[in-house]
Amino acid sequence: MQNKELKFIEIIKNSLSDNSYLGDDCAFLKDLNLCISSDMLVEGVHFDFKYTTPALLARKALKVNISDILASGAYPLYATVCLSGRLNEDFIEKFYSSINSCALEYGVKIIGGDLTASKDLTISICILGSGRGRNISSRKNAKKDYILALCGNFGASARGLKMLFENPRENNVFTKAHLDPDIQVKCSEAIASRALEPYAMMDSSDGLINALEWIARSSNAGFSVDYEKIPKIDGSSKAEVLFGGEDYSLVCALSKSDFERVNCPELIAAGVVTDTGRIFIDGKDIENETREEFLHFD
Amino acid sequence: MQNKELKFIEIIKNSLSDNSYLGDDCAFLKDLNLCISSDMLVEGVHFDFKYTTPALLARKALKVNISDILASGAYPLYATVCLSGRLNEDFIEKFYSSINSCALEYGVKIIGGDLTASKDLTISICILGSGRGRNISSRKNAKKDYILALCGNFGASARGLKMLFENPRENNVFTKAHLDPDIQVKCSEAIASRALEPYAMMDSSDGLINALEWIARSSNAGFSVDYEKIPKIDGSSKAEVLFGGEDYSLVCALSKSDFERVNCPELIAAGVVTDTGRIFIDGKDIENETREEFLHFD
Repeated sequence: MQNKELKFIEIIKNSLSDNSYLGDDCAFLKDLNLCISSDMLVEGVHFDFKYTTPALLARKALKVNISDILASGAYPLYATVCLSGRLNEDFIEKFYSSINSCALEYGVKIIGGDLTASKDLTISICILGSGRGRNISSRKNAKKDYILALCGNFGASARGLKMLFENPRENNVFTKAHLDPDIQVKCSEAIASRALEPYAMMDSSDGLINALEWIARSSNAGFSVDYEKIPKIDGSSKAEVLFGGEDYSLVCALSKSDFERVNCPELIAAGVVTDTGRIFIDGKDIENETREEFLHFD
Repeated sequence: MQNKELKFIEIIKNSLSDNSYLGDDCAFLKDLNLCISSDMLVEGVHFDFKYTTPALLARKALKVNISDILASGAYPLYATVCLSGRLNEDFIEKFYSSINSCALEYGVKIIGGDLTASKDLTISICILGSGRGRNISSRKNAKKDYILALCGNFGASARGLKMLFENPRENNVFTKAHLDPDIQVKCSEAIASRALEPYAMMDSSDGLINALEWIARSSNAGFSVDYEKIPKIDGSSKAEVLFGGEDYSLVCALSKSDFERVNCPELIAAGVVTDTGRIFIDGKDIENETREEFLHFD
């Protein structure tokens, strides 16, 4: 995790009278049994029209938000979509038509938003999901001897982005993973509707190690990971698999009995939760040994 | 209303399979009995640090969103706050401390958000309100012979903004109205908890005439307004009162019996709903006669 990001979050936590809703992919509103999340995507920071299109961007913007709901174990219901930028009719039509069909695919309703003028295009989506019949996750819930279970692949999106930098028209499994990522509806549902004990879950929007660090820090725990078991597409580098972001795969820590109960073929056991407070990949402490070779991802 | 804005909204309506949630200050989610709204504020478009501060900006950003909930007749519960910009610790602390105390004043909980880098500061807030015990408004509900009822003043914010352009340190009732506007909690509650029939309500974020035009268009109705009755601060010009935005006052059309039932001293009868499809101020059609003198507000 970057120090600046942590510092900012610390300031926000200290500024709020009640910061109990912070710390997960979604805020869980117990009284309403709803999960809510909002995200911002900025042109030149999160995307570039050199290699994406308004239609692909719309899909990804919505999927990124649905993924936050899935990481909580809830299911998505409603989303608001705000756009600022040098907007024109053609862009608005392509963007909203595409986000509408993506919303239909995932059972989401687009219920409103805002349009405003600005220099750089910014997309801000707020999504609401239901926790009805679901066991909602928290990053604080990992416990020693829990199984580290992964769903989806790790590293493909980062590799795809590199390829798009080199050739914006490249079109393969890696670029697809970056431009129109898979999200883990089935696995999230299986976990959240079957797990009986508290469990921790995040999506890998900022990479596998980042997710492990968040869960470890929030749960006062550590992880021991078997690199071989991490689901990945052949050709992904170790740096991409461990540190590459934007895959929107699921990183879950749940009890052994819940892992068996969930019984989802796509959910892969790739390690265990420890009480070391550190993250070991194949026995090597990620902090001491392996990080320097991946520094270009920081 | 500007043609461009209407055209964009038309495209969005046509792009969505279900556009029934659009058209009001908030989307009303009947199944959850919740109202939801999101807004974006962009530096250089909606605000300028020549005359505002991070603390004032935070308050206004939240109040603008609470006002949308109040215009629906709901009461605010939760908000997410996203910021993008050249963020630093000092700004984040001032902004979040101020938004936290404003949230406390209005019984709102800040439950999450997102921080990201970008050139211009953009604030995106999504707010959730409850409709429990409330009659929720719709712009479609105005009917002939309903009372046009107004709450709060009209025009002060626009006058305040002009004064701030001339002198960024000006500090009076008008600049206060622009920088830290009043919002109409009491009146909204009185209307929404007492009105028995359907009614229309909007806030005056884009000006009184804009609100009247929206309600007229959505309800296939018109208005006849008594200018003298419009609540305003002495010194506001007619252009400011009719077309000035960002007052966050309430513009409401409700039945005579509901107007009496609501019995809120701050709610002023200032006209009636007609079936002319046009807006008359003191008998003059706003479209034909008076608009040209106010063109600098378009």
